[in-house]
Amino acid sequence: MTAGSTAAPARADHGRLPRLEMRAGRPVVAVDVGGTLVKSALVDADGEVRAVCSEPTALGSAGALLDQLARAVAEAAAASAGHGPTGPSAVGVHVPGLVDDTRGVVLLAENLGLRDVPLREELSARTGLPVSLGNDARGAGFAEFRMGAARGARTAVVISIGTGIGAAVVVDGHLHDGDGFGCELGHMPMLLPGRDGPARCACGGASCLEQWASAGGVARNYARATGLPLGGAREVFEAAALGDPTAARVVGDGVDALALAVAQLATVLAPEVVVIAGGLSRAGDALFVPLRERVDQMLTFHRRPRVEPARFGDGAGVIASALRADELLEHRLEAAAPGGADGGTW
Amino acid sequence: MTAGSTAAPARADHGRLPRLEMRAGRPVVAVDVGGTLVKSALVDADGEVRAVCSEPTALGSAGALLDQLARAVAEAAAASAGHGPTGPSAVGVHVPGLVDDTRGVVLLAENLGLRDVPLREELSARTGLPVSLGNDARGAGFAEFRMGAARGARTAVVISIGTGIGAAVVVDGHLHDGDGFGCELGHMPMLLPGRDGPARCACGGASCLEQWASAGGVARNYARATGLPLGGAREVFEAAALGDPTAARVVGDGVDALALAVAQLATVLAPEVVVIAGGLSRAGDALFVPLRERVDQMLTFHRRPRVEPARFGDGAGVIASALRADELLEHRLEAAAPGGADGGTW
Repeated sequence: MTAGSTAAPARADHGRLPRLEMRAGRPVVAVDVGGTLVKSALVDADGEVRAVCSEPTALGSAGALLDQLARAVAEAAAASAGHGPTGPSAVGVHVPGLVDDTRGVVLLAENLGLRDVPLREELSARTGLPVSLGNDARGAGFAEFRMGAARGARTAVVISIGTGIGAAVVVDGHLHDGDGFGCELGHMPMLLPGRDGPARCACGGASCLEQWASAGGVARNYARATGLPLGGAREVFEAAALGDPTAARVVGDGVDALALAVAQLATVLAPEVVVIAGGLSRAGDALFVPLRERVDQMLTFHRRPRVEPARFGDGAGVIASALRADELLEHRLEAAAPGGADGGTW
Repeated sequence: MTAGSTAAPARADHGRLPRLEMRAGRPVVAVDVGGTLVKSALVDADGEVRAVCSEPTALGSAGALLDQLARAVAEAAAASAGHGPTGPSAVGVHVPGLVDDTRGVVLLAENLGLRDVPLREELSARTGLPVSLGNDARGAGFAEFRMGAARGARTAVVISIGTGIGAAVVVDGHLHDGDGFGCELGHMPMLLPGRDGPARCACGGASCLEQWASAGGVARNYARATGLPLGGAREVFEAAALGDPTAARVVGDGVDALALAVAQLATVLAPEVVVIAGGLSRAGDALFVPLRERVDQMLTFHRRPRVEPARFGDGAGVIASALRADELLEHRLEAAAPGGADGGTW
């Protein structure tokens, strides 16, 4: 995520992680796998985040990454001795890429060099613990839905804008997965055929949203328009605020495209709230004021969603992994309870 | 719905209604309220559609419409004497407009002159029967999901294209309602600000999908481009097939816009199938061949939905109302069963 802030966000928490609302009352290990770093944490039974670690991501093979994740779980388990009577009961993992949450399979994670890896099953075999696996942007959205800016909504969209754009779509209280193919908002085509837009996306799409509205897209579009070296989206927002007309046009085009996507989702899904997360959300009013205005202009009788900055910043991945691990335990406890769907062991 | 066929659809059934798959095993009354006609039917416990009636819609007041609906229910109940031991146990009603299915309230139905009418409760009070109320396009989609072209899918979009465009979005097996504001695909904005498109929509929107891709939009765009009197979309499709370049452009623009909307939904929801229903679906290959081709061109790594014509034609409203009434009874039976959520009476 290359974008920074021009104004401090009101609700983002980029520092110490909050106490998490755990429902199952058991410690868990939370792991956030990024293209650069693997962050891991022990979260105790009371939801306090303990022993946060980060180290460079082991790239090159699924085996190397699995070894690294198993080691991180073992370290968190060792750290748990000081924080309660029992070790961790589950592991939550989020990775960037196409992930089939239901089957626990990484379909494609180009940054990590993974394709069709049954990561959930393999990590579970190595750790002896149940594992929840998901896509990072969907996880970040789930964290906002459970404890953040989308809390209390029934239907919500969380758009994570960094180098690319990911999203989470919660419909009637359920995080939609689409067998791994849903919520790919960054690669939503935005233009009718034959209309001019920004450069073709790396995915092959002619008019993907992230070519306009991601931090990476804003930076690239400004460099292309000016001939200046590639910088960050933060600099483009700052130049726009200082009156640079090219920067203002690039930022305006990005906001227009994002507003159109939000208005389209408002038409089809009618979410109560749309949350903007990720680095670009730190642009603050320079993003949110025109975004809200343009969404409002595009809608007529539709229900207008609130458009809000995310509560969680860089810690969203760890928080999401802890909450998904907790959810897994909660479902197992429910299933094991008298009258539940499954009286089996876990 | 002003569009007709240039080729007979393979799967549409515009004649006799099929036997419906009823789960609750009770007769129901199915009512389809249109801007012109009210159609009603008795559906017996075995799902056979009996005693179909239609009469001009009573417009002018909610009271007049309620009187008409109550009469239709009474007539169906009287007709039921010859078709089983018990009278109808529930009523299903679909109306065009903004409907909050959950609360049973018509928020706005301009064709019918209704605003904020608690139709479900009032019809239930007049008939003594439980009533299910919904939006007509969502209902048509539900019928396709339960018994038609979207059967077996977990996530599906059904787009009903007639004078306007309505839709049903089924996400992970649940018909999404958005408190009445969801699924309004006809009023999805399609253009970035400042880009040229067709005429402004009656809803006030600058680039609503139905201005390009509805039967009404196609007919209007052709009349505007040629100066000819307003005809039907069927004539425009026929002219395009005969080589009229203006007609080909108008049809092509409509298909492009529809393909973009389908590709956008594929990105966010990843439906297994997109069903095209309504009058325009009778255009057959002239619509489906280029539509599938353009959707395919717009997508890259995304899951490609099947794009299929609807199974049900003009009878979709009656079928949907019967199935929703049956669903209501099924939920009540489940709730009343030992171990269910509600041991109450009904």
